[in-house]
Amino acid sequence: MSLTVLIAPSGFKESLSVKDVTLAISRGVRRAMPDAKILSAPMVDGGEGTTEALIAATNGKMRRARVTGPVGQPVDSFWGVMGGKGPRTAVIEMAAAAGLSLVPRDRRDPTLTTSRGVGELILQALDHGAERILIGCGDSGVNDGGAGMARALGARLLDAQGHELPEGGGALERLAHIDITGLDPRLRKTRIDAAVNWHNMLLGEKGVARVFGPQKGATPEQVEQLDRGMQTYAACILRATDRDVAPMQGAGASGGLGAGLIAFAGATLHPRFEIMLDYLDFDRLLGRADLVITAEGALDGQSPYGKVPCEVSRRARELGIPTVALAGTIGKGARQTYGHGIAAYVSIVKRPCSLDEAIGKGAKLLRRAAENAMRMMLVGQQLAERQHRA
Amino acid sequence: MSLTVLIAPSGFKESLSVKDVTLAISRGVRRAMPDAKILSAPMVDGGEGTTEALIAATNGKMRRARVTGPVGQPVDSFWGVMGGKGPRTAVIEMAAAAGLSLVPRDRRDPTLTTSRGVGELILQALDHGAERILIGCGDSGVNDGGAGMARALGARLLDAQGHELPEGGGALERLAHIDITGLDPRLRKTRIDAAVNWHNMLLGEKGVARVFGPQKGATPEQVEQLDRGMQTYAACILRATDRDVAPMQGAGASGGLGAGLIAFAGATLHPRFEIMLDYLDFDRLLGRADLVITAEGALDGQSPYGKVPCEVSRRARELGIPTVALAGTIGKGARQTYGHGIAAYVSIVKRPCSLDEAIGKGAKLLRRAAENAMRMMLVGQQLAERQHRA
Repeated sequence: MSLTVLIAPSGFKESLSVKDVTLAISRGVRRAMPDAKILSAPMVDGGEGTTEALIAATNGKMRRARVTGPVGQPVDSFWGVMGGKGPRTAVIEMAAAAGLSLVPRDRRDPTLTTSRGVGELILQALDHGAERILIGCGDSGVNDGGAGMARALGARLLDAQGHELPEGGGALERLAHIDITGLDPRLRKTRIDAAVNWHNMLLGEKGVARVFGPQKGATPEQVEQLDRGMQTYAACILRATDRDVAPMQGAGASGGLGAGLIAFAGATLHPRFEIMLDYLDFDRLLGRADLVITAEGALDGQSPYGKVPCEVSRRARELGIPTVALAGTIGKGARQTYGHGIAAYVSIVKRPCSLDEAIGKGAKLLRRAAENAMRMMLVGQQLAERQHRA
Repeated sequence: MSLTVLIAPSGFKESLSVKDVTLAISRGVRRAMPDAKILSAPMVDGGEGTTEALIAATNGKMRRARVTGPVGQPVDSFWGVMGGKGPRTAVIEMAAAAGLSLVPRDRRDPTLTTSRGVGELILQALDHGAERILIGCGDSGVNDGGAGMARALGARLLDAQGHELPEGGGALERLAHIDITGLDPRLRKTRIDAAVNWHNMLLGEKGVARVFGPQKGATPEQVEQLDRGMQTYAACILRATDRDVAPMQGAGASGGLGAGLIAFAGATLHPRFEIMLDYLDFDRLLGRADLVITAEGALDGQSPYGKVPCEVSRRARELGIPTVALAGTIGKGARQTYGHGIAAYVSIVKRPCSLDEAIGKGAKLLRRAAENAMRMMLVGQQLAERQHRA
């Protein structure tokens, strides 16, 4: 009996990329069941690696692009064109143009860094004739609310005297007016979706400056300056576009890029894994699958709240497809995932060992765990067939 | 769909008794499949706990008995009458009368300790009308070749002057003649089987004195004395009974009790788990089972060579029943067990952790692992049923 298995895992943080995870699981499945058909839907979070994973999964193409980096330097960046049928689709990860890893350590000052390069990548995608664009947020090194991107797309950010503001989130507290008349008209005709952490807010105590500013290099004073800047920026966006980004979920994603995407690119923000499932055409893949295997570093009581395994399993359950989960750690509360479509789970760990050991052997452990999970399922098949004959 | 699951595990060394292991697995199975029928065949090795496990598994009865302990002291001992149909069956574990744990630490001198109590238990079983007796070897504190047992059964061990030797393996080097005319005649009419470690030899470099003498308290000189004693003893047995125990597999079990059982009780020695499977009527249980679950502390490349999981799985395979194995540690070479009837295995460990942590939570981990293994199998059943409908 040949099965079609849809592998839809997350990467394992600091250990295995989603590509490696997918590969290891698929090898394990094949060892137990050489004739299994394997489909894959690597689940990425919008941050670094998103483009590569989506391109690889759909046989798409990577495009090189030279854009303005977060400290104004030219950087060799990239974006992707997804493969497959359907509308011509571009994928951009903001980190490829304004990621923290592109900010030299001695210049980590989010009052100055800019998201301009993200706008430049969007323009390249538009030039290429993209009919829809997916923008992944995450791993950013900026806090400019997408102001740099807005400029690249044709907006003008002016102070009370009508002078253009300099780049960076630090200047935004002096913003008085945003002129959107010069925005690229193609933006209005193009569907733009952004994958964001749904809990990233723009302003205040849980706002982007306070929560993420320090890890991007902001001093306590700069955090306050950035938050004031975001307040002013949101007010100016409301006047210029009639959109109130202040209370919107995800508007604080990637240093407030979420807000800028809504205001200037006409983008719709989405909880990151939901939109990934859509772009990966997950429901169509599910329609061909008998079984889903998902995986994440940890499976626990938090998994039902926005983590990959349950996002995947809930979608699969709607189509009546069982999902099994593999995890490095089966933690407290993992049983709760049973209520969200996870039919069974197993740890990849195969004996008492240190975390370092488990991480070091991650790919091998995953392959073995996938093989044995499939073997357990094969036993179940065998039992069903025996009973059927009996 | 209701399944009949036969649980046939080993205990987990220094962690969980076979009873606890069986219970934990059965709870896990029921959690995943509340209507499962559960059979159990706790696999014991002949040592401490053997009687209790066999009695519990067959709804038998424990019998109390006061016998001579290994240092001559009276000890409160026990033996069991197995339940179920078939011949009236007694179970004796030698450790209950001559075990190392019955030898006070300051009297651990295997030149003096005696297996007499084992013979006394056999007499009690005969008095009870036992038609067959299973004697479990293991965990002994003696090295007298079963000479003490032989005396209890009616043999006389004499020196060159025709005087009775004192108890203990140390005196056997002075043995000249064994008089078996007084042996209890019921022994000839009773089937006696002994469960032994098949690799325990009686004499020489790999003989019982050299391999096990030191851990029973023998000094290097005493080890040599005991080995000389066993040589003399084997020679006298050959003359008295025409049986050459010297080269026999298992004759060295329990301080040479194996040899004494052959010579004086007319016993047949068996690799321990094979005979356990027979006394547990394993093939009959298999005939009712759809699935076997086995378990041991470790599953690895050694498992096919006399360890519980593969002993069980090979027997199950002959009847076409799949076996899955749970283990604390899945070690190097575990894949080899696939060739011996293990269809799938999984570790009970669910995250990187210390050995102590895994041992401390052993029962819970086992229960969870059993539940999830069953859940994996249920997924497989579901897949088979889907495909059957399709």
